[in-house]
Amino acid sequence: MVKEVRNAVGRYIPEEINGKSVVPFQGVGKFRPTGRKFAPRIATCADYPNDGNKLVASLKEALVKAGLKDGMTISTHHHFRNGDLIANMVFDIAHDLGVRDLVWFPSASFPCHAHLISYLKDGTINRIEGSMNGPLGRFASEGGMKGVGVLRSHGGRYQAVQDGEVEIDIAIIAAPTADAFGNATGDRGPAACGLLGFALADSQYADKVIVVTDNLVPFPCIPWQIHGNYVDYTVVVDQVGIPEKIVSGTTQITKSPDRLLIAELTARFCDEVGIVKDGFSYQAGAGGTALSIGIYFEKILRERDIKARFIRAGSNQYPVQMLEEGVVDYILDGQTFDLEGVRSMRENNNHVNTSPFTSYNYHGKGNFASMVDVVILGATEVDVNFNANVVTHSDGVLLHGIGGWQNCLFAKCTILPVPLFRDRVPVIVDEVTTLCGPGELIDVIVTERGLAVNPSRTDLLEKLKETDLPVRTIEELKEEAEQICGKPAKPTFTDDVIAAIKWVDGTVIDVVRKVDRR
Amino acid sequence: MVKEVRNAVGRYIPEEINGKSVVPFQGVGKFRPTGRKFAPRIATCADYPNDGNKLVASLKEALVKAGLKDGMTISTHHHFRNGDLIANMVFDIAHDLGVRDLVWFPSASFPCHAHLISYLKDGTINRIEGSMNGPLGRFASEGGMKGVGVLRSHGGRYQAVQDGEVEIDIAIIAAPTADAFGNATGDRGPAACGLLGFALADSQYADKVIVVTDNLVPFPCIPWQIHGNYVDYTVVVDQVGIPEKIVSGTTQITKSPDRLLIAELTARFCDEVGIVKDGFSYQAGAGGTALSIGIYFEKILRERDIKARFIRAGSNQYPVQMLEEGVVDYILDGQTFDLEGVRSMRENNNHVNTSPFTSYNYHGKGNFASMVDVVILGATEVDVNFNANVVTHSDGVLLHGIGGWQNCLFAKCTILPVPLFRDRVPVIVDEVTTLCGPGELIDVIVTERGLAVNPSRTDLLEKLKETDLPVRTIEELKEEAEQICGKPAKPTFTDDVIAAIKWVDGTVIDVVRKVDRR
Repeated sequence: MVKEVRNAVGRYIPEEINGKSVVPFQGVGKFRPTGRKFAPRIATCADYPNDGNKLVASLKEALVKAGLKDGMTISTHHHFRNGDLIANMVFDIAHDLGVRDLVWFPSASFPCHAHLISYLKDGTINRIEGSMNGPLGRFASEGGMKGVGVLRSHGGRYQAVQDGEVEIDIAIIAAPTADAFGNATGDRGPAACGLLGFALADSQYADKVIVVTDNLVPFPCIPWQIHGNYVDYTVVVDQVGIPEKIVSGTTQITKSPDRLLIAELTARFCDEVGIVKDGFSYQAGAGGTALSIGIYFEKILRERDIKARFIRAGSNQYPVQMLEEGVVDYILDGQTFDLEGVRSMRENNNHVNTSPFTSYNYHGKGNFASMVDVVILGATEVDVNFNANVVTHSDGVLLHGIGGWQNCLFAKCTILPVPLFRDRVPVIVDEVTTLCGPGELIDVIVTERGLAVNPSRTDLLEKLKETDLPVRTIEELKEEAEQICGKPAKPTFTDDVIAAIKWVDGTVIDVVRKVDRR
Repeated sequence: MVKEVRNAVGRYIPEEINGKSVVPFQGVGKFRPTGRKFAPRIATCADYPNDGNKLVASLKEALVKAGLKDGMTISTHHHFRNGDLIANMVFDIAHDLGVRDLVWFPSASFPCHAHLISYLKDGTINRIEGSMNGPLGRFASEGGMKGVGVLRSHGGRYQAVQDGEVEIDIAIIAAPTADAFGNATGDRGPAACGLLGFALADSQYADKVIVVTDNLVPFPCIPWQIHGNYVDYTVVVDQVGIPEKIVSGTTQITKSPDRLLIAELTARFCDEVGIVKDGFSYQAGAGGTALSIGIYFEKILRERDIKARFIRAGSNQYPVQMLEEGVVDYILDGQTFDLEGVRSMRENNNHVNTSPFTSYNYHGKGNFASMVDVVILGATEVDVNFNANVVTHSDGVLLHGIGGWQNCLFAKCTILPVPLFRDRVPVIVDEVTTLCGPGELIDVIVTERGLAVNPSRTDLLEKLKETDLPVRTIEELKEEAEQICGKPAKPTFTDDVIAAIKWVDGTVIDVVRKVDRR
């Protein structure tokens, strides 16, 4: 068995994962990269058609020309979310060609990719490096995957590619609109998904890049969110994504009284400690509670006739309306969650296309995440040290990806609004099952029974003294949950590591082990 | 003395220039790069302020913090053209600090930089790698520069940085508008110059990057033509450029009857061989003749109620008007030449910001230049083998840069409209003084006394048979010029190499030698 070492948050990490040595998490900002960025091969125009026409007849032909072979790392992006059609197509072709032991490196995988479980079983795919939402995560948790999964944040994925931790052999970039040269955009076309930022690193660093589209336009495809100058082959298919599944289903404001209470409490907290003010900035996800918090913010801004400078998004109809009505100057958007988001990004220059490079890459000269005044995030579990879990459930099963969550923790104030319990299982626990975010970066936990502030944020605690907000300690919240639900049983695991959780700097902050069904 | 070798166009090239070994030109598309791109050091956000504020008090402080020291390579861009104030400021500071032997790597230099001749003399600057327009070129031609100048095309400059031939220690990016994080744009602000594409490679690959602005805006600066994520320090100065000198003075349509004739002949040629048609594309410079050709194109398009798909520019009021009136779909712009160009780029999403990477980099997976249907370029000399010179005059003095000229030669049809003689010196000669572009890429020479087509373009010659255009051989044109002006005396040179002329792939196609004043 591989030797394990204890990292800076007390988690035991194998010294080696998938045959590569591992750097254990060393603390926030402690790991010092010393090397140089990954250097792709130098190309020459002499190898590409002068007329810019890189079209090949089929995705299969493109993959063969790109040299698809055993053991390669193949990347895709998830801007189509659960409506993606291309990743399955790629591995169907690989399977037909008898290629084996591939590493799939998606920016995220979704239930629509459950189709690939058979290829994980038959050895076409060795492992998934990327988030595994739903069935693929469950399959991994049960020990089904040959290799060890590696989960990275959006920024961590950019960092891993930039730094050469992951060398992409072939990147497949499904594009709602593209030209034959490979310029591509997500903001228009029948499968419009807004933007293609998750594929940026892939385009820049992969050895071979294939753009697949169902909406070919004459050169130039404007805007070129992806530069054709990085692209080797272009392919036209009937359909790259299912439009009705591309937009997320989580863009409804919550109707639950408890969640509304949490949302209101969060917004009040931000207002009363002085975060909500003219020129402030925030990021809230697309979940029901987060949406409601955004609407509270909007209400305050409108009442006082002040403006937010920018909203970091995941955009949807609500921030778009704020932008159009002048309540915010800019939306800095990483992925659009509804068709209004797509339309706004296409039409409004102040709805800005960002990428994991600009927003989240920790191995850059700064990024946007740390400049945001307040970020509102979810969690499956939080512990009494403010550490949080976002990938596994309390039964230990891996069911979610990290997304931009770890990257966002660097905001000036990080708030996790969570219910005290879900399905009679407490959310605040002694120790999180999987540690995805260290407590030192998590400032406030808001529940329907009060909010707890990280003791290190004495500034916030001081400001709260002048308010009547229901401030509790995290221990009090935990005890209250346990009084109602009882102390939850801990999940049991075997020793087998089924997935590594990377920190934003490429170190390993925790691992997920195989659930023990005995 | 350094050994010299004969390259593929018969020019003698030293085996070593500035202490680095040289690859002689091997023919168009013949040199095969084998290495990997330059890999900048991996940065970490832990070294940059969380609030994104990278402002330092002065340019001097920024240079000191960036570690300015002897022998470094310092880059600047030329979007301010003859109105640039920053490059001189940088070397004034270097001189004050007693730093020596710097390599100045501008994207181009202008007469306003004659100020730097004293630093070339006193050893503050060892050499200029970049075009030397006017006095700096003359200074170099007279042997005044310690090191050997290296001239590259815009695409060649990107290639050299990308491939690590030139390692930029400190890039100084003067920006008409920027935020404290380093996001920067050229399309607005008191010194608006349109775009900042010439600084793109510098931002991506330089070890340290300093953004200097006279118009600081709150984060985010939108658009971010330069990404703050590449920037180390930001500085505010009183003025980055002199607005009235930023726009080029060459944007007047020619009034010379000979030049108008050349323009008309060029446009007629393009029309009669079938280049001008619905959806075609062209690139013409900002000189008077080129402008007039564009106006002939516009006239044809309007008369037939058809559209050009795109104009590659150097934009000015004429293409802008065509764009706004729907005579062309897109302007793909590399630099704006007047205030209408700046305004259009700021206001019109179909006036697109390009860069030497997208348009010209020969070591990419294709670029835009080869996709253009016809390009109209200038030349100081053309020889009977269609080779052309664009950097030296017939007296041998280096007075111009290459610009995008070499890159543009890859267009589907390259036309050089030139007068038969200038100041009674023939333009068409037996052998060009400096060979900047190989004849195989140059298709047509248009003069006021007829046009000559490269014999290799049998397709064009065939089409011309059906026209009454005055087709001549290049030899006939040369002889006619010599009959009028006499055969010109050849300039005399010493053996000393004062500048190397790079080809788009980093090989050396020719050198410029010191003029012999004996």
